[in-house]
Amino acid sequence: MKALVYAGPNQKVLEERPKPELRSPTDAIVKITRTTICGTDLHILKGDVPSCQTGRILGHEGVGIIDSVGTGVATFKPGDRVLISCVSACGTCHFCRRLMYSHCTAGGWILGNTIDGTQAEFVRIPHADMSLYAVPDGADEETLVLFSDILPTGHECGVLNGRVLPGGTVAIVGAGPIGLAALVTARFYSPAHVIMIDLDEGRLANAKRFGATSTVNSTDGKAADAVMKITNGLGVDTAIEAVGIAATFELCEQIVAAGGTIANIGVHGKKADLHLELLWDRNISITTRLVDTVSTPMLLKMFCAHKFQPKELITHRFPFARILEAYDTFANAAKTHALKVIIEA
Amino acid sequence: MKALVYAGPNQKVLEERPKPELRSPTDAIVKITRTTICGTDLHILKGDVPSCQTGRILGHEGVGIIDSVGTGVATFKPGDRVLISCVSACGTCHFCRRLMYSHCTAGGWILGNTIDGTQAEFVRIPHADMSLYAVPDGADEETLVLFSDILPTGHECGVLNGRVLPGGTVAIVGAGPIGLAALVTARFYSPAHVIMIDLDEGRLANAKRFGATSTVNSTDGKAADAVMKITNGLGVDTAIEAVGIAATFELCEQIVAAGGTIANIGVHGKKADLHLELLWDRNISITTRLVDTVSTPMLLKMFCAHKFQPKELITHRFPFARILEAYDTFANAAKTHALKVIIEA
Amino acid sequence: MKALVYAGPNQKVLEERPKPELRSPTDAIVKITRTTICGTDLHILKGDVPSCQTGRILGHEGVGIIDSVGTGVATFKPGDRVLISCVSACGTCHFCRRLMYSHCTAGGWILGNTIDGTQAEFVRIPHADMSLYAVPDGADEETLVLFSDILPTGHECGVLNGRVLPGGTVAIVGAGPIGLAALVTARFYSPAHVIMIDLDEGRLANAKRFGATSTVNSTDGKAADAVMKITNGLGVDTAIEAVGIAATFELCEQIVAAGGTIANIGVHGKKADLHLELLWDRNISITTRLVDTVSTPMLLKMFCAHKFQPKELITHRFPFARILEAYDTFANAAKTHALKVIIEA
Amino acid sequence: MKALVYAGPNQKVLEERPKPELRSPTDAIVKITRTTICGTDLHILKGDVPSCQTGRILGHEGVGIIDSVGTGVATFKPGDRVLISCVSACGTCHFCRRLMYSHCTAGGWILGNTIDGTQAEFVRIPHADMSLYAVPDGADEETLVLFSDILPTGHECGVLNGRVLPGGTVAIVGAGPIGLAALVTARFYSPAHVIMIDLDEGRLANAKRFGATSTVNSTDGKAADAVMKITNGLGVDTAIEAVGIAATFELCEQIVAAGGTIANIGVHGKKADLHLELLWDRNISITTRLVDTVSTPMLLKMFCAHKFQPKELITHRFPFARILEAYDTFANAAKTHALKVIIEA
Repeated sequence: MKALVYAGPNQKVLEERPKPELRSPTDAIVKITRTTICGTDLHILKGDVPSCQTGRILGHEGVGIIDSVGTGVATFKPGDRVLISCVSACGTCHFCRRLMYSHCTAGGWILGNTIDGTQAEFVRIPHADMSLYAVPDGADEETLVLFSDILPTGHECGVLNGRVLPGGTVAIVGAGPIGLAALVTARFYSPAHVIMIDLDEGRLANAKRFGATSTVNSTDGKAADAVMKITNGLGVDTAIEAVGIAATFELCEQIVAAGGTIANIGVHGKKADLHLELLWDRNISITTRLVDTVSTPMLLKMFCAHKFQPKELITHRFPFARILEAYDTFANAAKTHALKVIIEA
Repeated sequence: MKALVYAGPNQKVLEERPKPELRSPTDAIVKITRTTICGTDLHILKGDVPSCQTGRILGHEGVGIIDSVGTGVATFKPGDRVLISCVSACGTCHFCRRLMYSHCTAGGWILGNTIDGTQAEFVRIPHADMSLYAVPDGADEETLVLFSDILPTGHECGVLNGRVLPGGTVAIVGAGPIGLAALVTARFYSPAHVIMIDLDEGRLANAKRFGATSTVNSTDGKAADAVMKITNGLGVDTAIEAVGIAATFELCEQIVAAGGTIANIGVHGKKADLHLELLWDRNISITTRLVDTVSTPMLLKMFCAHKFQPKELITHRFPFARILEAYDTFANAAKTHALKVIIEA
Repeated sequence: MKALVYAGPNQKVLEERPKPELRSPTDAIVKITRTTICGTDLHILKGDVPSCQTGRILGHEGVGIIDSVGTGVATFKPGDRVLISCVSACGTCHFCRRLMYSHCTAGGWILGNTIDGTQAEFVRIPHADMSLYAVPDGADEETLVLFSDILPTGHECGVLNGRVLPGGTVAIVGAGPIGLAALVTARFYSPAHVIMIDLDEGRLANAKRFGATSTVNSTDGKAADAVMKITNGLGVDTAIEAVGIAATFELCEQIVAAGGTIANIGVHGKKADLHLELLWDRNISITTRLVDTVSTPMLLKMFCAHKFQPKELITHRFPFARILEAYDTFANAAKTHALKVIIEA
Repeated sequence: MKALVYAGPNQKVLEERPKPELRSPTDAIVKITRTTICGTDLHILKGDVPSCQTGRILGHEGVGIIDSVGTGVATFKPGDRVLISCVSACGTCHFCRRLMYSHCTAGGWILGNTIDGTQAEFVRIPHADMSLYAVPDGADEETLVLFSDILPTGHECGVLNGRVLPGGTVAIVGAGPIGLAALVTARFYSPAHVIMIDLDEGRLANAKRFGATSTVNSTDGKAADAVMKITNGLGVDTAIEAVGIAATFELCEQIVAAGGTIANIGVHGKKADLHLELLWDRNISITTRLVDTVSTPMLLKMFCAHKFQPKELITHRFPFARILEAYDTFANAAKTHALKVIIEA
């Protein structure tokens, strides 16, 4: 089969690989019908993710059709249409029993990282009963690709951890795909105000379309002042970091209200300064999280009930044969205005 | 009346001051029978607390007898014996309605800071109905002094914020009075293990007496390794910072388990390094808090029901006339082994 | 001044009364500009509320203008426009410190019950700082009358107690004003489905306009079957009782899903059968509550941010001189289709 | 093998049965070393549990040794010593994902109910990875039998659902084994007072030994008055029903404080009267629950850390050959003073 393979820092190749086989009774083999590219794939390609070795098939998102299942798989059978979760979960380890699937001792984020991933014609999914979801009848499968990672990530790491509540004030730093995923799922909890912060006017205009009540362009380095002005000097109840660098995290420290929460989504490569001399008496919380995908069933219910329409996060579509072009488009979002790019089988 | 007054950095004087008077209908004047000295008083004396101006009577802890009350005070009358909360609360502002008394827009930590405090013969207490507690019948008043600040601080900033739970593992960094206050109140929630970390063997031995299940002397710089060994490599569910410097906070970052919480109690004068490159995917929470004293009624119930005996936190007693000597004893705890020193009227 | 007075079972009179005076430093006198009639006022008139004695001025809802304040009132001054809470709270008793204002030992629901109420030209409001809210700039004062009681009641007793969550399924039994208040505030939490149940087709059609996703007419005694069919046999996550009789509560027992909640709002005069033989192993919760009005500040924020428009709950308007006619209109809702009737000064 | 079989109402026989075999890849066969008898087994024998058919091997508690495992079992291998959970959980259905294992669509309480149980030489355990726990090194296996059902039941249905908190007041109605299990686990949360209510002075004396702070003999029908006196007229924060009849549930209604919780543990065969006319405005919660065994890992941690000693709940021991005698002893607890009886292989 064809597969997109990490060939060492700054190198990727589309090459022929053998079709994966069942290795454990709880495995399933899924024929991929649609997948996508994540910012994390770009991190891997930069050589920033040491757990991902040269030769790995990338990708941890997608929908497809069950090709075969192990004898221990109870929920799925060949021909079933399924959504693939970016996080694999055994369901039984001490982390899974606490619903922290991200830290599953036999799973977690392994797809396209420590085992071969979804940017291929077929993929082996361990712990299939816990790591796949049946495609709901009549659901738009293209949109479902967003439920593999980006929507649960925005919701769990940003919105749930950030304790977004009716009447609250939220700032989201970073209006890229993950910031927008936080925005669209924040609205489930009816915050009174959502302030979107970014350097790019196009992205900010986009954020308005997705429901931001205010936008702040942080190019001038005065974003904190702007947020304080919008919030009458109180700051925000929830500050969501959706970039992954020290500067944006430290901006969150400046704008979080007393009693508020900084919810980190960003993948950080370096430390940040934590200004405890200013924050020790502010009654704040800071949270980090690798998505657990525990809210995927709820997100699917909301989608099936037509309570939100995340489809507009998809900006480009490519056939699998042109996946290298899809990578270029996604990597040059400033120019291409790409949010999520769909790769079709 | 006699009062202990902050006379600028590194200077304090015991001097004569006029007895305070009622200024607002919700004020009470309390005759102090016992007070104590807090680590924060030492911070003020170093000149580290800009909100506290030269000439301020220090002190924010104590018990006493109501001398007079304003016309708007409903709960207390002259002659009532009362416990003074270190935090004053109006009860009606938007922070008080969220039980964040520490950030009361007309109160908070003001005693011995922005208004005159309790290290005097009399003190004016604003918002008396919310900021005083009736001394329970038969309660030992000396021990009650610990309920003004140190016990609710250890409990709220350390134990509640740290989400200590039955079966959990807790590390407390700093075995001084506030770390011990966290220890004795952590036990209300039945953690399976409490590891106490300090540089001083005497304090660690003390911690064992107060219920620590393990102790780690961090002098060798290998405390993190020791904690990992004790916890089978998992780290602790709750890491409580009870010192107030970057090094101890950063130790907490090293020992917190995936899914765990770092609860900061320490008063910090400088920033710390937050290693987001290691923590972004660890599903942790970090909390800060100025004590709200919302748990004081519960702590008093536990005390009246003989469910804990914090009296042993008191190591020295001085008459008010010798308060300067009390300060020396408290400031030289390494030598004097002082925990809390009681000043008696 | 003119006042609507309870004159014993089934009797009410519009009569002349002396203007109320300040009795305590924390009182305010408010000149009423708008008030309304509550289902509870009808209960009183039936003689069903023994705490309300003959001679009482009725009413516990309204907006107005501060006429005078006691010396202990810090937040308001004459001329301020205010919203009156149906629940008075001292803010300092052990219930108020737990945010259970409904059970305040010096307050609770006393207006128009154990002290004179708001259906008059003036009313005395005890504990004014805690029991009044400033009218937000530019807010429609007529709509604000709904924030005295009906909106916080629907929200707290129905929606919060019922733990309405994104993706969840809700049934509300009773499509009268209080059921609709639960409906409009339930939407803050994005349930996937809200089923409204009533005997009256007009009310059900109304409920659709307010956002119900399904309606069930329970006239045929088969409402439980209908709900089970809609929910694929699972039942609802949240069943809200908004009528106040045994039959509707028992319907909630039949339709609540395993793991779900029955949130009672209704004022009950008689016991209901609790079918523990069917429910003991169903992992359900049942809650009761007198509104605490703790969510009023949030509801006001949502209103000011234009996040919901409850104004359509107002169906009729009367000048104060015609308040007896307003009572007739409200009491004959089946014929008049009245939801809330506004009485204007 | 020998097995204790339900032979229809009021009949049980000790008879020879074939050893169970693996049926599914996720099954394990466990050789029983110790089991016990539950009150529910007596209910079955009375013919009160229709889901349990004639011919069923009874028993849902026990410890043993893995005899064989299916190919899909990842955690256990033959020879491992294991604790059997009374609840079997697939781990993947929508209830299991919410940690409501009791309602697992492919499990729940099935052992000794809808499939053959543990009162035999061997038992087949479905979903072995989720439904068995490794015996901790050095743990007393006899005491571990209490962790199959009675301890998690008391803890989850009584203590967790009842929201027992430090400083709180608890009443437990019924001082039998399950009431005592609630008592010993309630102490993890440090209630200030635990009142035990029963008709039997011997059981009440026993409850004192297990940590009750007060006892009330309800023989005179005045238990509610006694509880009100002990609680200064407030009632209890948590009322735990541990009997299973209407009268004891209704007693809980009388003694629960405003803002409190009634947590039902009892297995009820009939309805109770719910006095909504008295409770509608009391801000109470009522909960029901079939144990989910989600807290079993925590309980095991507490046991291994020597934080509680439930062994004294075991009063009698019998070899398996004398299991009929064990039933007699357990069924006649009033005379034999039996709490839990251990059946040894």
